[in-house]
Amino acid sequence: MNTIANQRISALRELMASRNINATIIPQTDPHQSEYLGAHWQVRRWFSGFTGSAGTLVVTRDKALLWVDSRYFIQATAQVDGSEIGIMKIAMPGTPTINEYLTTNLRGGDTVGLDGMLFSSSEIDKMKREFKPHGIKIATDFDPADGLWNDRPALPDAPVIIHDTKYAGESAESKLVSLRKFIADNKADAMLISALDELAWALNIRSRDVRCNPVATAYLLVGSNDATLFINPDKITDEVATYLSSLGIAIAPYDSLSTSLAKSAYPVVAIDPATTSARVIEILNERAKQVTSPITLNKAVKNEIQIQGIRQAMVRDGVALVKGFMEIERRVKAGERITEITVSEILKHHRSERDLFFDESFDTIAGYGSHGAIVHYSATPETDVPVGTSSLLLVDSGAQYLDGTTDITRTIIIGEPSEAQRRHFTLVLKGNIDLVSAIFPQGTRGTQLDALAHLPLWKAGLNYMHGTGHGVGHFLNVHEGPHSIRTNEMPTPLEPGMIVTDEPGLYLEGEYGIRCENTLLVVPAMHTDMGQFYGFESLTLFPFDRKLVDTAILDYNELNWLNNYHHRVYTILAPHLDETEREWLRQQTAPIN
Amino acid sequence: MNTIANQRISALRELMASRNINATIIPQTDPHQSEYLGAHWQVRRWFSGFTGSAGTLVVTRDKALLWVDSRYFIQATAQVDGSEIGIMKIAMPGTPTINEYLTTNLRGGDTVGLDGMLFSSSEIDKMKREFKPHGIKIATDFDPADGLWNDRPALPDAPVIIHDTKYAGESAESKLVSLRKFIADNKADAMLISALDELAWALNIRSRDVRCNPVATAYLLVGSNDATLFINPDKITDEVATYLSSLGIAIAPYDSLSTSLAKSAYPVVAIDPATTSARVIEILNERAKQVTSPITLNKAVKNEIQIQGIRQAMVRDGVALVKGFMEIERRVKAGERITEITVSEILKHHRSERDLFFDESFDTIAGYGSHGAIVHYSATPETDVPVGTSSLLLVDSGAQYLDGTTDITRTIIIGEPSEAQRRHFTLVLKGNIDLVSAIFPQGTRGTQLDALAHLPLWKAGLNYMHGTGHGVGHFLNVHEGPHSIRTNEMPTPLEPGMIVTDEPGLYLEGEYGIRCENTLLVVPAMHTDMGQFYGFESLTLFPFDRKLVDTAILDYNELNWLNNYHHRVYTILAPHLDETEREWLRQQTAPIN
Repeated sequence: MNTIANQRISALRELMASRNINATIIPQTDPHQSEYLGAHWQVRRWFSGFTGSAGTLVVTRDKALLWVDSRYFIQATAQVDGSEIGIMKIAMPGTPTINEYLTTNLRGGDTVGLDGMLFSSSEIDKMKREFKPHGIKIATDFDPADGLWNDRPALPDAPVIIHDTKYAGESAESKLVSLRKFIADNKADAMLISALDELAWALNIRSRDVRCNPVATAYLLVGSNDATLFINPDKITDEVATYLSSLGIAIAPYDSLSTSLAKSAYPVVAIDPATTSARVIEILNERAKQVTSPITLNKAVKNEIQIQGIRQAMVRDGVALVKGFMEIERRVKAGERITEITVSEILKHHRSERDLFFDESFDTIAGYGSHGAIVHYSATPETDVPVGTSSLLLVDSGAQYLDGTTDITRTIIIGEPSEAQRRHFTLVLKGNIDLVSAIFPQGTRGTQLDALAHLPLWKAGLNYMHGTGHGVGHFLNVHEGPHSIRTNEMPTPLEPGMIVTDEPGLYLEGEYGIRCENTLLVVPAMHTDMGQFYGFESLTLFPFDRKLVDTAILDYNELNWLNNYHHRVYTILAPHLDETEREWLRQQTAPIN
Repeated sequence: MNTIANQRISALRELMASRNINATIIPQTDPHQSEYLGAHWQVRRWFSGFTGSAGTLVVTRDKALLWVDSRYFIQATAQVDGSEIGIMKIAMPGTPTINEYLTTNLRGGDTVGLDGMLFSSSEIDKMKREFKPHGIKIATDFDPADGLWNDRPALPDAPVIIHDTKYAGESAESKLVSLRKFIADNKADAMLISALDELAWALNIRSRDVRCNPVATAYLLVGSNDATLFINPDKITDEVATYLSSLGIAIAPYDSLSTSLAKSAYPVVAIDPATTSARVIEILNERAKQVTSPITLNKAVKNEIQIQGIRQAMVRDGVALVKGFMEIERRVKAGERITEITVSEILKHHRSERDLFFDESFDTIAGYGSHGAIVHYSATPETDVPVGTSSLLLVDSGAQYLDGTTDITRTIIIGEPSEAQRRHFTLVLKGNIDLVSAIFPQGTRGTQLDALAHLPLWKAGLNYMHGTGHGVGHFLNVHEGPHSIRTNEMPTPLEPGMIVTDEPGLYLEGEYGIRCENTLLVVPAMHTDMGQFYGFESLTLFPFDRKLVDTAILDYNELNWLNNYHHRVYTILAPHLDETEREWLRQQTAPIN
């Protein structure tokens, strides 16, 4: 029962009234347009009590509404229960966009106040275009938390670490040379990098500023001969100071960016409007030159060293998963109370014992029974339940290793499955296999392939509403662009070296959830008279639950893929396992006829 | 050997020099943004000698280049042979767009001259945006044919006919009421309809102005209480004059549009920038209000009467095809010289004997052997070859009946196929079947489904470069939007009542071409807890060539679909056939095991 939200929203309305603001938009992001946030930036969570990783709160003089996507329909409804906050289900028939809602419900002359540091320039431009015909104004200097959130956490101060070139595969020197070439080619004098994963990639640095995302909170301003990292100086060790200095990078306080930009001498500063704050662009004004950051694509296409690293990380991750799932199965069967939180702890424990482990790559989603149907469920002490033997356990987890990032979902049953459970599981698995088995010509976008993962479910009148696949960073954010596999149009073609997940699912509210997720590498498949064709290789190494496979639903090629995959998983992992583990894995990967 | 193009281009360059024009763009369209053109508008053909239905000629002071898509790579190269014209292959690696080419090859201060009546406002806006940074100017009042094309055909004067409501399913009165509601809802005082098929649909009129496209060349200006049809008055019979008068529609000369718009009293005129000439919008200037024409979507979603009509037209078309293909097979086997042109004539003959036949819906493509690999091949007396028994014959044809438009492609062999021919044919057929068998949720776009038709070919390292499916008019243009099934993004979702073709292909240059095309209707499939799902119904009624089917390549469901389809074709057509024809069809549709 959420009782505190109404008080905080009332206080916000007083602040709005004092500033002549008629509506405010509180997004889930930070000044770097990050998806996952440090505690300092959890403003929307503080106001609403909703803890999901995506969703936007809109407060007007008389309404408070939370826009959430289908992953969070159930969770958000539960977490705002008891408050005045209404849930707006994104992309459902009849749900307006935030801009549509505001243009319909505000009056000409009204002002929408927001913190321009938390919106990309593209977003503000769109808002301006859509608000203008209705006479609605925008004030970008309104911080809704200003003076209200008294115990707001400070900016992070975890030390920066250097990501060795033996893992990164390319030195920061080399990346800066490319970046400076890009700046020159685009007739600019400097480029501001705001996206945290982009600057971490460019400088081969990491930190622990954002839970599970090994980034440092900073801005990087690169000129043709100089460069400045705007960062909390407490984060810079002597070693890192020496490293940055060797790269010709000066250090300046994080909060000096605005003044520094305002007085900087660069006549033209390239910025990517997708990741740069509207406010930063206002400061640069005429000097800002909008470009698409070349780092986005360069970072997405992994080099050979990175790919080798990811393969090795996947072996370690697979070994940890064998140990973890064996332990879960053994202890549940022994009648121990193993809850969803215990499942997360067991997996984290086994992963953390592997070489080069750094952190989890996101908070494990372990959902038993009906909790599995809550797409981005994260067990809390209040919701935690023991894992039983009659329903499905969905476990989506991953780790950050120095040589690669993993992301895997397996859905298992510890007892014996029902016919419906097997049918539903196999329809999801069939979509997973149909996608990984695809061959496609150069230039193909993820959007074109998305239906392959959906189709077996669609034919049964079933569906899932989340994306089918996202890019994965290399010892970086578990979600990264610019490519993806989803129903809406994403223009970046898939190309060799890209990592993308393959994760169809099925969520039966009140019953159980299923997701089958492997992380894939785009690889060349063949070159023919008709051009270059690509395909996928599964990087993830862990079996799907054989007990849940209904062979009547798989065709010959699909079953063959599954048996080959299981054979490969066994062959690669077996040398790293003890005899008991090997025997367990042998049974889990035995051919299905 | 094209020798005349160089002379015409030289004359054009003199005209350009006298007008201070550095480059001109000559598109394949008319002032209505039509895809197929009356003879009067064949300016690009007159200059270049290239007869294809799409492609744009660009002439600069020292280059003449023809941009064509993959359907026309072979044909265009052959038709410009001997001239200075170079071929630019659209969407191939390294081919710039026309705008990219011009911005790279012209200098600041240069002027691109073009006829603004032949470009949509969207196109000109894009050009302006892209040319501006390079200092390139645009003159929209340059007619490249001006004074050069002396024997240019006049505007068409075929009579307008009324399309009876018993076929159209909705009266023009009713359509005008909806249109006026749209105009009012969009706070406009009038709307100008430029697209010929849109105004034909809105007024339930047809004509013969464009080969195979039963449209009248006109503009329709609809006010809240009045309306004017700008049309050659010679086209208006007494009956049509009475009909239009009963609808409250005045008639004005076709070429009085510009002056009439300039002096018209409507304060706000809605126009669709996708189909309205840039020049028309310049005339309206501040009074133009850009909207998406509601007719596009209304026309695409067929009503029950139209669907019934199409089903009946398909029966007649199927009967004509049985008679036609029987005759082709019999005469070839008898050793008669049946050429590609004879094939077209035979099909046209049998179709024209059916009730309600009006015209072909496009020029039949009958390509034997290597001609089949030329995607939009159209046999001429110079290229015509006899149909033999060893290679494949690709026949893409269709008809306009008063109650519906048909479009079908079949690929057959009269002798015995090789293993490669069967394999290639079956891979194409497999894609056709996989697409028609799809089930998909409400909101799905054709782009999402395109890969289903491509995938069997992609997995074999094969591909085709044209769209998989296009909308089809109802006794109207055989190509219509706004939906389609193709690799590039098209935002309109498929919805019940839409017609779309399903036509994967394979083109082996120098060998043969294959295309399997049925015309489909989008239909509701099921409603479940997870929403509304749609599917397809094949409207086309004619068997695929059983001899070319390699059952090893089809899975159980695909073969089952084929056998069921053939059973349905036989059941529906048999009552309309004589005994010999029935027996022939029985053999063609016998179950394949």
